[in-house]
Amino acid sequence: MSKPVTKEEALDYHQFPKPGKLEIGTTTKLGTQRDLALAYTPGVAFPCLEIEKNPDNAFKYTAKKNLVAVISNGTAVLGLGNIGAVASKPVMEGKAVLFKKFAAVDSFDIEVDETDVEKFVSICKAISPTFGGINLEDIKAPECFEIERRLIEEVDIPVMHDDQHGTAIITTAGLINACEIIGKKLEDLKVIVMGAGAAAISCARMYKAVGVKDIIMCDSKGVIHDARTDLNKYKKEFSIKESMTKLDAFRDADVVLGLSKPGTFTEEHIAVMADEPIVFALANPTPELFPEDILKIRDKAIVGTGRSDFNNQINNVLGFPFIFRGALDVQAKKINMQMKKAAAYAIADLAKKTVPADVKAIFGDHLTFSKEYIIPKPFDKRLIIEISSAVANAAVESGVARIKEFDLTAYKEELSQMI
Amino acid sequence: MSKPVTKEEALDYHQFPKPGKLEIGTTTKLGTQRDLALAYTPGVAFPCLEIEKNPDNAFKYTAKKNLVAVISNGTAVLGLGNIGAVASKPVMEGKAVLFKKFAAVDSFDIEVDETDVEKFVSICKAISPTFGGINLEDIKAPECFEIERRLIEEVDIPVMHDDQHGTAIITTAGLINACEIIGKKLEDLKVIVMGAGAAAISCARMYKAVGVKDIIMCDSKGVIHDARTDLNKYKKEFSIKESMTKLDAFRDADVVLGLSKPGTFTEEHIAVMADEPIVFALANPTPELFPEDILKIRDKAIVGTGRSDFNNQINNVLGFPFIFRGALDVQAKKINMQMKKAAAYAIADLAKKTVPADVKAIFGDHLTFSKEYIIPKPFDKRLIIEISSAVANAAVESGVARIKEFDLTAYKEELSQMI
Repeated sequence: MSKPVTKEEALDYHQFPKPGKLEIGTTTKLGTQRDLALAYTPGVAFPCLEIEKNPDNAFKYTAKKNLVAVISNGTAVLGLGNIGAVASKPVMEGKAVLFKKFAAVDSFDIEVDETDVEKFVSICKAISPTFGGINLEDIKAPECFEIERRLIEEVDIPVMHDDQHGTAIITTAGLINACEIIGKKLEDLKVIVMGAGAAAISCARMYKAVGVKDIIMCDSKGVIHDARTDLNKYKKEFSIKESMTKLDAFRDADVVLGLSKPGTFTEEHIAVMADEPIVFALANPTPELFPEDILKIRDKAIVGTGRSDFNNQINNVLGFPFIFRGALDVQAKKINMQMKKAAAYAIADLAKKTVPADVKAIFGDHLTFSKEYIIPKPFDKRLIIEISSAVANAAVESGVARIKEFDLTAYKEELSQMI
Repeated sequence: MSKPVTKEEALDYHQFPKPGKLEIGTTTKLGTQRDLALAYTPGVAFPCLEIEKNPDNAFKYTAKKNLVAVISNGTAVLGLGNIGAVASKPVMEGKAVLFKKFAAVDSFDIEVDETDVEKFVSICKAISPTFGGINLEDIKAPECFEIERRLIEEVDIPVMHDDQHGTAIITTAGLINACEIIGKKLEDLKVIVMGAGAAAISCARMYKAVGVKDIIMCDSKGVIHDARTDLNKYKKEFSIKESMTKLDAFRDADVVLGLSKPGTFTEEHIAVMADEPIVFALANPTPELFPEDILKIRDKAIVGTGRSDFNNQINNVLGFPFIFRGALDVQAKKINMQMKKAAAYAIADLAKKTVPADVKAIFGDHLTFSKEYIIPKPFDKRLIIEISSAVANAAVESGVARIKEFDLTAYKEELSQMI
């Protein structure tokens, strides 16, 4: 791994050439009085009136067409916790620039100083006419569930809380491919979800949606089961009938998904799992258990982490830019499960294709579909083509797209020119 | 005048090369895994923690330093009235791109679907950590007064409702210079304000602040006086003791400021004014009375309108970009009257200086301080230097700037390089 990022280097990166990471650019000519008369009064009245007649014309005459808000209240920022709205701004700007870099989506961060669910929802709803989509970010559980649910229901643009669904989509892709490699079916897996926060709940929901039946979830107090009286409604969704120890839960499990912290499972737990286990140890930057320690106990294991210095990095950047790209391009009103599944399968399929030379140049020549390479790498230019087209197509087919005439081949060609 | 802007031309301008007028750009490198590690996790945690320690560090490590929100609820858009939030978006984007073009201020538009004063204020307040300043736009009177007052009081970044103060600042500059030309003192003027909306109230307040004593305001029902029972508190501020007709009000008046609609004053009214009257007929696009009709009655009049095809265009673009530029650069907490007065005097002074060749090339060789040229033209590159420096200096001197060490000469040099 390259040398760790230092504080000085990170602060310099954020301070120069000027404070922050994004700026506003203009896309039209503004050099003459006549340009001003078109961009502003009196010419600007014409598009205003068109939009007044039909609000969907905003997609035609304003930046809304390609614009995603990254919205946070700063209550669950990275591993830093509740640092507040303004302190979360560098993360939200970072997310916004990733949208632009990876999928040519214009994205603007909004930091909202409000923790009350009802008020936060009202604020997002009120400012939603501005945008073509809303990426919720770093909002703590359980509030994030209700906030996302309400907004999906109440606004007419796609809303996605990436902390929940990003990880769900990428790990689902990894799970699909890992199953193929070890020759098991999703239906037959026994899966342990270690952690019961926003991402964990969303992953478990998505695994069910792709066919997984046997899921045991554990929080900091152990296995989540019906006799416990301390469960919120989201945890109850995955509560099992019988009480058991964590070690018993791991017995013969095929998969463990770690969304918790270092040490919540150990070699002892790996030792009772199936012979070829799938282990996603996603605590970041220190995983629940390091790959080498997992492979010491189960040398046939498939291991993924959140880190770029190990194989199989589960990185949200493989998802959100391309998912919103596809949603925006068909003017979707929602991001539904069909679209999320389409994204997961597109990511999974891509890992099975020959890796292009420019990606190998960054990550090494060894990249070929195997236990060490079950998910694609960032900077792979096929991501935008395959994921965005799959998502857009699913939006059209599931009836949430405003655009009805959709040519998949032409759109993929368009995407190939976009970045 | 050049040929009028057509609907087709205006819609094309807004639709191509892509919908809308602005986009998001990135200001840092994002080409490698290491760049990502700096822009996002793990590097981004360092600026977050610095801002958590001291919120003012957001000016150091995020785009907040140079970022103004253009916020509207679409209740009083141009001459179009209450067209709603989303339909106002082309105007707000237009304002944002003017900020960038004229003063290198990054500006982003937020359309808020909320007309209730209390809720609108809460929303702006909640999202204010995102920005370094807030330009309120096209919000109807009288709500706009309370909204602006509350936000100025409750947020720690500069807030200005441009519809009110923009016109006030530019017409004050015009008034100062017109007085100099006709040899009268502000203290001795009799001023008629025709109209009693947001801009009219703000103009009247500012004229008082620079020394005008005798102001008579008229709304659609005539002169505003104490016996009337239909006055809101803003109109009452300018209510005069005795009742009189509009024509009586105009008798011997030195100035009429029209912020109303075509025909609210006529040749008959001009005919009873002082011998060398100052007439600002700002109804747009059709002025209250055309310059040629005014000059027919009073050939020594000084006339200004809102239009670019007549002399003395009162154009807000001479104000807001440079006022926020100055406020942002000293991290001002407010835009106070001292700063607005400083802007007005800087604009007035500039009109008295020799006009640069590039401005003459656009507007004609005749430009020299006179009845036909009492305010500078847009595209004059000295505007940013003179106005922004005057505003920043006034912010520091009146104690509302976070930046305490301020070198006026060095700052002017910096401004001269900025656009």
